[in-house]
Amino acid sequence: MLRRNFLKGAGIGVAASAVAAPAIAQSAPEINWRLTSSFPKSLDTIYGAAEVFAKYVSDATDGKFKIQVFPAGELAPGLEAANEVSKGTVEICHTCSYYYWGKDPAFAFGTAVPFGLNSRMQNAWMYHGGGIELMNEFYAGHNLFGLPCGNTGAQMGGWFRKEIKTVDDLKGVKMRIAGFAGKVMSGVGVVPQQIAGGEIYPALEKGTIDAAEWVGPYDDEKLGFYKVAPYYYYPGWWEGGAYLHIMINTEKWNSLPKNYQAIVWAAAQAANSDTQAKYDFLNPTALKKLAASGAQLRPYPQDVLEACFASAKAAYEEISASNAAFKKMYDAMSAVRADQYLWFQVSEHTFDTFMMNQQRKKAL
Amino acid sequence: MLRRNFLKGAGIGVAASAVAAPAIAQSAPEINWRLTSSFPKSLDTIYGAAEVFAKYVSDATDGKFKIQVFPAGELAPGLEAANEVSKGTVEICHTCSYYYWGKDPAFAFGTAVPFGLNSRMQNAWMYHGGGIELMNEFYAGHNLFGLPCGNTGAQMGGWFRKEIKTVDDLKGVKMRIAGFAGKVMSGVGVVPQQIAGGEIYPALEKGTIDAAEWVGPYDDEKLGFYKVAPYYYYPGWWEGGAYLHIMINTEKWNSLPKNYQAIVWAAAQAANSDTQAKYDFLNPTALKKLAASGAQLRPYPQDVLEACFASAKAAYEEISASNAAFKKMYDAMSAVRADQYLWFQVSEHTFDTFMMNQQRKKAL
Repeated sequence: MLRRNFLKGAGIGVAASAVAAPAIAQSAPEINWRLTSSFPKSLDTIYGAAEVFAKYVSDATDGKFKIQVFPAGELAPGLEAANEVSKGTVEICHTCSYYYWGKDPAFAFGTAVPFGLNSRMQNAWMYHGGGIELMNEFYAGHNLFGLPCGNTGAQMGGWFRKEIKTVDDLKGVKMRIAGFAGKVMSGVGVVPQQIAGGEIYPALEKGTIDAAEWVGPYDDEKLGFYKVAPYYYYPGWWEGGAYLHIMINTEKWNSLPKNYQAIVWAAAQAANSDTQAKYDFLNPTALKKLAASGAQLRPYPQDVLEACFASAKAAYEEISASNAAFKKMYDAMSAVRADQYLWFQVSEHTFDTFMMNQQRKKAL
Repeated sequence: MLRRNFLKGAGIGVAASAVAAPAIAQSAPEINWRLTSSFPKSLDTIYGAAEVFAKYVSDATDGKFKIQVFPAGELAPGLEAANEVSKGTVEICHTCSYYYWGKDPAFAFGTAVPFGLNSRMQNAWMYHGGGIELMNEFYAGHNLFGLPCGNTGAQMGGWFRKEIKTVDDLKGVKMRIAGFAGKVMSGVGVVPQQIAGGEIYPALEKGTIDAAEWVGPYDDEKLGFYKVAPYYYYPGWWEGGAYLHIMINTEKWNSLPKNYQAIVWAAAQAANSDTQAKYDFLNPTALKKLAASGAQLRPYPQDVLEACFASAKAAYEEISASNAAFKKMYDAMSAVRADQYLWFQVSEHTFDTFMMNQQRKKAL
């Protein structure tokens, strides 16, 4: 329901250029956009989310509204995607909002924050708890309009060359981990490293770094980390439900006819759900493959999780003290989080726990 | 990806009547459909899913493809919705596939089956594991084309006048519970009752029945069951992630232009996700309200769950022995289920468990 109010408030107008056509064409102008992805084609899950979105839009408009997807590096470097859209050099991008954490830490809430929400809770907050409106109040200041478009679910906690038995084992560990998660990890002694995807494997192999986080089984398996850093930790508490976003230049968004805006909205929401379904379907097989290849699955020890939770809390408070937009989103997310985890522990968690016990007994 | 193959295989053709219009109108004919919902307007969650779907379709087509939503009873009784669509008296319905369990038990898989998949797993199976294709092979025999359009998440396990401490306490309990779940419950001594939503409260009050299942906190709270049957059990193991469906008359579906089919697909997938988000957002507040009003939350005892699990297994085997369509879907679902519960217990469950512990410590 919120969505209707939101569209109403977004100042939707048909661009002058589109109004000139005859009545029936008003709602079906030919539009060609370029989408710059933050990801390489080899990540078929994440990169694929933008392709699914673009296909939905094209199919819904009989090919009249075409969005061509370009991999990272062709139109803009992966970490610059939203910056180019903001400037208007490209109409739309598919990216992680938290890549822009360096510009403003409030960008983190668009993707995932340490000890934040799981994937379903993210959707509850965004689509029915005012999250999309709140994020876009902020994005508007960067000349962007954003919508969730894909979720990985709870990610894994990364690959380690050596086993981590207590929080002390993290001291001095050079880990490829960025942004907010890196800040929290540094609070427990980790030395965060910024390394591009393609350089992680050789760095782990040489021992230049001791650990690296990536995504989850399906994406991780392709990069072969298990060969050089066999300890595969979980959960990735910094990404309990990590969103991808489409981000559109504000003027470009406002110039779309109303029905194209509606198509973009539904296509993004459908692709958002579709990507989560794809990850969920692909991850189990990849996990089995990894385990068979020698990956050593390990839960993070409880004291590690507790120390990281405390470090995250301190980081939230520190940033909130000097950044009002961040504080507003943190407060909103926290309220949703407390309620969601109250409810999810009742039916969802009890059902899943029973079923997982059956799975371990091989009764399924 | 599967979706593209599916649409290709579905024999999509533009109806002769639509082809007569000029080129630009071919893809934007004016179409008016009536949708018969299986639900009353008062269930704003479930009934609302059809409204969200219809609005997406209308907005995407600039009002050219209008789907008018009618509550149960106006065009067809709630439990007859798909039958009328099958006959072609109404173009489309929004219903629960398992309402037609009496015609063929295989219909159950479209909604939820006892000890089946949770909401995310349902999506994984349907959208990426071949579930939509498999369901529609079956629906086609009933002149229907179906798509998921809403999910409740794991439902609650029902309201009981007396506490259930062991499986023996279920013997002779008259419970409002239907279909497959009723069959499984009868295996542990429950006497299943078929009662329409509006008649549950007086029946519980008078003691004509001892227990009743409905949906979850938000929907249940409206009906006030806590006043007459205060013990509120969880989880609703027969509906770990219950889908709603739109079902379209096959000829009507085939007559849509390709772009309208694409719009229906994306709108249904978006509304599917949107409804889950709405439930997730509304349930926590309702749960707190129920607890404050005197509802007594109780997990089903472990021996009850184990006995019901065994009863379900026996029922699956019994029906599979004589129904090939049912067996095919059960085998497909079981394979997905074993894999999904293997993976979900790793990162998702560990993350959620840690966060729920923080919630109980009031640290969130």
